[in-house]
Amino acid sequence: MSLWIRHAGRVAALGVMLLLSTAGPGLADEGMWTFDNFPSAMVKAKYGIAIDQAWLAKVQAATARLSVGCSTAVVSSQGLILTNYHCAADCAQDLSSPNKDYVKEGFQVSTVVEERRCPGMEADILVSIGDVTAQVQSAIGGKSAHELVAARDGIEAQIEKAACAAKQATLNCEVVSFYGGEQYKLYVYRKFTDVRLVFAPESDAGLFGGDPDNFNFPRYDLDVSFLRLYADGRPVATPDHLKWNASPPTDKEPVLVVGDPGSTSRLLTADQLETLRAVILPQTLLRLSELRGRLISFGERGADEQRIADQALMGIENDFKELYGEFQALSEPGFIEIRRAAAAALRSQVAANPGLAARIGDPWLQIAKVQAARADQTAAYNLIEAVPGEGSDLYAYARRLVRAAQERAKPDGQRLAGYGDARLPELERQVLDPRPVYPALERIELEFWLAKIRETLGPDAPQTQAFLGKVSPEDLAARLTTSTLGDPAVRRALWEGGLPAVMASRDPLILYVLATDPVARAVRTSWEDKVAGPTAAAAEKIAEARFAVYGASAYPDATFTPRVSFGEVEGWTWRDHTTLPFTTFAGLWNRATGSPPFALAPSWLAARGRLKDGTIFDFTTDNDIAGGNSGSPVIDAKGEIIGAAFDGNILSLGGSFAFDDDVNRSVAVSTAAVTEALDIVYHDEPLLAELRAP
Amino acid sequence: MSLWIRHAGRVAALGVMLLLSTAGPGLADEGMWTFDNFPSAMVKAKYGIAIDQAWLAKVQAATARLSVGCSTAVVSSQGLILTNYHCAADCAQDLSSPNKDYVKEGFQVSTVVEERRCPGMEADILVSIGDVTAQVQSAIGGKSAHELVAARDGIEAQIEKAACAAKQATLNCEVVSFYGGEQYKLYVYRKFTDVRLVFAPESDAGLFGGDPDNFNFPRYDLDVSFLRLYADGRPVATPDHLKWNASPPTDKEPVLVVGDPGSTSRLLTADQLETLRAVILPQTLLRLSELRGRLISFGERGADEQRIADQALMGIENDFKELYGEFQALSEPGFIEIRRAAAAALRSQVAANPGLAARIGDPWLQIAKVQAARADQTAAYNLIEAVPGEGSDLYAYARRLVRAAQERAKPDGQRLAGYGDARLPELERQVLDPRPVYPALERIELEFWLAKIRETLGPDAPQTQAFLGKVSPEDLAARLTTSTLGDPAVRRALWEGGLPAVMASRDPLILYVLATDPVARAVRTSWEDKVAGPTAAAAEKIAEARFAVYGASAYPDATFTPRVSFGEVEGWTWRDHTTLPFTTFAGLWNRATGSPPFALAPSWLAARGRLKDGTIFDFTTDNDIAGGNSGSPVIDAKGEIIGAAFDGNILSLGGSFAFDDDVNRSVAVSTAAVTEALDIVYHDEPLLAELRAP
Repeated sequence: MSLWIRHAGRVAALGVMLLLSTAGPGLADEGMWTFDNFPSAMVKAKYGIAIDQAWLAKVQAATARLSVGCSTAVVSSQGLILTNYHCAADCAQDLSSPNKDYVKEGFQVSTVVEERRCPGMEADILVSIGDVTAQVQSAIGGKSAHELVAARDGIEAQIEKAACAAKQATLNCEVVSFYGGEQYKLYVYRKFTDVRLVFAPESDAGLFGGDPDNFNFPRYDLDVSFLRLYADGRPVATPDHLKWNASPPTDKEPVLVVGDPGSTSRLLTADQLETLRAVILPQTLLRLSELRGRLISFGERGADEQRIADQALMGIENDFKELYGEFQALSEPGFIEIRRAAAAALRSQVAANPGLAARIGDPWLQIAKVQAARADQTAAYNLIEAVPGEGSDLYAYARRLVRAAQERAKPDGQRLAGYGDARLPELERQVLDPRPVYPALERIELEFWLAKIRETLGPDAPQTQAFLGKVSPEDLAARLTTSTLGDPAVRRALWEGGLPAVMASRDPLILYVLATDPVARAVRTSWEDKVAGPTAAAAEKIAEARFAVYGASAYPDATFTPRVSFGEVEGWTWRDHTTLPFTTFAGLWNRATGSPPFALAPSWLAARGRLKDGTIFDFTTDNDIAGGNSGSPVIDAKGEIIGAAFDGNILSLGGSFAFDDDVNRSVAVSTAAVTEALDIVYHDEPLLAELRAP
Repeated sequence: MSLWIRHAGRVAALGVMLLLSTAGPGLADEGMWTFDNFPSAMVKAKYGIAIDQAWLAKVQAATARLSVGCSTAVVSSQGLILTNYHCAADCAQDLSSPNKDYVKEGFQVSTVVEERRCPGMEADILVSIGDVTAQVQSAIGGKSAHELVAARDGIEAQIEKAACAAKQATLNCEVVSFYGGEQYKLYVYRKFTDVRLVFAPESDAGLFGGDPDNFNFPRYDLDVSFLRLYADGRPVATPDHLKWNASPPTDKEPVLVVGDPGSTSRLLTADQLETLRAVILPQTLLRLSELRGRLISFGERGADEQRIADQALMGIENDFKELYGEFQALSEPGFIEIRRAAAAALRSQVAANPGLAARIGDPWLQIAKVQAARADQTAAYNLIEAVPGEGSDLYAYARRLVRAAQERAKPDGQRLAGYGDARLPELERQVLDPRPVYPALERIELEFWLAKIRETLGPDAPQTQAFLGKVSPEDLAARLTTSTLGDPAVRRALWEGGLPAVMASRDPLILYVLATDPVARAVRTSWEDKVAGPTAAAAEKIAEARFAVYGASAYPDATFTPRVSFGEVEGWTWRDHTTLPFTTFAGLWNRATGSPPFALAPSWLAARGRLKDGTIFDFTTDNDIAGGNSGSPVIDAKGEIIGAAFDGNILSLGGSFAFDDDVNRSVAVSTAAVTEALDIVYHDEPLLAELRAP
């Protein structure tokens, strides 16, 4: 379940900047390519398959991004979409009640009217890509530090508003920076804000093997769920869907994976990677690790607590394993030095061209100089401004309500990023959609967060004084958890009442955010002045140097926008140990020990004699993917779906920084296995019929 | 409370090797000097005070090492010793009952008969130091890998037995390796196994500020306790005690700190430090962090759970902060490179002398080559062999009972380290002394341990298969916790019954250790073959090179043996911020917020008007100390005690690898404050009278 980006935000903003990548002639199956720059000729030459504009247009129309940080494929003409189990697990949890646990028991419907809307979920299908580089660059030209960041945020909000203001109900407009600011593109999506749950297996099938098997292979997971796009209360007609192909994948078969990788940082400078390795990743990992421990122990108090804790743990353990893999990759002897050598090569080419050298200056040195401030400020920035609250929903509501009220009182181009008019519909839905709030979980998260502020910044830091004063984290968290923001009606009144309503509120969390937000904004400004602004200016110069020296035929770093990656079904060899690319149902029975997380769901145990031993269950490919690709369709040369990516192997985690064709593998579940499971285990004839329809 | 080494063993064996240090002429207040090699001339030149052999002999006789990983001073003629509060906190916990919480309430006696024996505690006063280098080196000469380690362990056990066999009731003999094996010394101690608690303050005075203030200064802790040495049921006469001096310390006053620093690694090679930074410290920190989270959450279930968790947390949080400080020091840009440059300088001097070069070879390269195996095996070695059980007392009992039974059946020189005849009395006391066992805590520790084996080594690793099979960590931990080894009588029967009794036991933990121990021993042998053996051989060569090039006038790395460090009372300046070396009682009242861990004990709040604002409470010095120095007396030029060291500042944590005279500081509580508190807060006239007696 690794290929998931969690937006709720317990993970530190790694502060990565997106730079031009190194792909060039002769490189293997590397690259997360945009739809407007796919290397069809390279793929034709290597695999003999023709990925032309028609193919790409069809696939673009039949894939969607999910707001929970996942990818999907449209697989029927009636708006049915396929994604991973773990991408719908939050929804299943939100729809559960004390009497009905859809996470544990799975979710299945007899008729379409039983499909249930997933709170807060949005699906986006890419409609168009436009170039807005000139507009953005002219707005930020000559600016630096905090002013640069503010100008960039402002012009992006204006462009988004101009493009989408009249069609906010159906379109989603986002300005995206590529190649470290060398390009800015306007991505326009058709958006679907009514996405309903159709089918999810039991967690003991969808997440079989749990955390121990995460990023592991051989693997035995039915990590799929089906959702449906609705508009005006009816299923959306989607004639351009992918064809369901239940044939098993074959070794070395060429495949394409289409989806939305969230973020990679393949061309950070060596100094930026050092700060990640030495400061940012360790801080984040240690925090996740302790929170994990608190939640595991909380979950052991009883069945209710277990259910609440498990859902939070799924994301935390996934984040932990992913970031630990990144840390390990960066800690490999020599890993960062390769980056330093590559930069030296580029710099010497720049130096050889006096005109270019004068234009570029020494952005590498500037970035190196920024690192001390970045290391110093990252803890305060992440804890207080970037990802505050350690996942607390109540805190997120309060923060968004307070800031939305304050920011909406300003002209659009002067607001904080994310509060422009074009983004308000999404923000409004995040704030107002009814979702259950678990006070015990909230209290754990808030107490932990406050304790980490004190521990990390020190008891005497002014920020600690502002956020805690003389109160203990335990007492303050208990008080804040009495907030009534868990009630959607309370949130709606504050959202609609705007600044006057917020200022008049006596809710303890609203009061708390109002009191502390000036400190958080000061932390943000300092970060933008000392870190984000100078980094953005220097990164753009490095990107300019790369374009000048290497040309512009490479793929950009991942940005949670739709990408196409090519490759083949393939195992791998590591330290003399070869892993085959397939598992079959036969292997599942041996791994099912009966003890969690290897306790297989009863429906599967009951079907054991009827499932074919030889059916390919999960498989690996060498496609270049990343967190956010969860649920991405694996597509064969004919453009038909033969699987859904849901994970990478442990070696793929270094892919955040560099792709290694020899050992980085994506992990997918086969449509063959899904089809057989729907038939034999779940007896879901209507769903099978819909998948098989033309 | 940082200066404490916890022996119970949740911390990974860092695998540090003890090498010759760099101290030389002109170096400032650096060094943890042995009693047989103190640089009196250097101290005389710098501070004008005469530390002659008589001074040293007197202090040696008046200081003792505590088996809980602390140091003490003898402060009366009747065996009274002064150490830190946190060094006696385990004892206070062990003596507590559901009706009486000596940790929270403190411990005080009206008469000497109320003094209570601390289970398992031993105090050792150094009697003599002898050189056994030739014996050890001739036994290991020409051996390598596992054989080298076994030969060294064997000869050490034989030497210890020969020296102490006839006097095991009163003497403790230990062979200690110095300078990476260039010297082996026989340390003989007079041992006291009946150590009783006399006085401990409330935890809200002794540990005021808790984890947030740990390694912090300004500081306001009465981190002291008094114990008494007993023999034959009576207080021991100790005419050679230190004189109690209640005068306050003065700025720049020369002071000596005498105690037992546990371990430093100031001359590991750069490659060894890289492995620490990249693999070993992160693994250990992440484990401690999650365990900490589990215990914090467990403690929040209720008052009983809080008491049990707090005691375990004190050690875990201390370890965490200390190791995180070490990680941060190693992650400082350039820190490790300085080590590499120093090695290059030494190597070039070796190369300039052909005879020396031929004798030394290239041990740096050998150590570099060992690092891959070290990084690979460290997780299995630490989890399964070196520090198994994550602190579980029951597991430690089972492991020691099984191994003692197996090892005692072998000749002395062929046993595992720690199981030689000379060590058996200590082992026996550790196993048999009655101490409370908390099943809920045991279960948390065992479950966590088993989960980490699976997570760290992977579900498919043969070790995971051996230790877990198809059972979940949760179920297995629950079963193992039903062990009856918490009952001292059960342990005694197994200890005295030896191998037949152990083999006949049906205790689930004994059975478990018997079943899994061959795997643990295999992990140990592999570690010794691939890591410990080759490292020891190479380290000895590097030490030989250092002696040849730089001479032998330096201090050795810390080894939990008595050391003397010199320095002065002094604050420090860091990034333009100057910290004064003193706090006073006046500052305490402002820091006492009423919220834990800043909730000051009621006895102190009641005494507020009567304590003098200007009394110096805690103070800092630039003495070079380390974990294990907790409780070390701070001694003035006259040889009188003026304080007890209990911590270092946060910058001192890099001292594990390099001492920085400018910013490394030890933190002590003044005898002035102790005297006034005993008088005004605790009204302990008998104790004061004893301290004031000649």
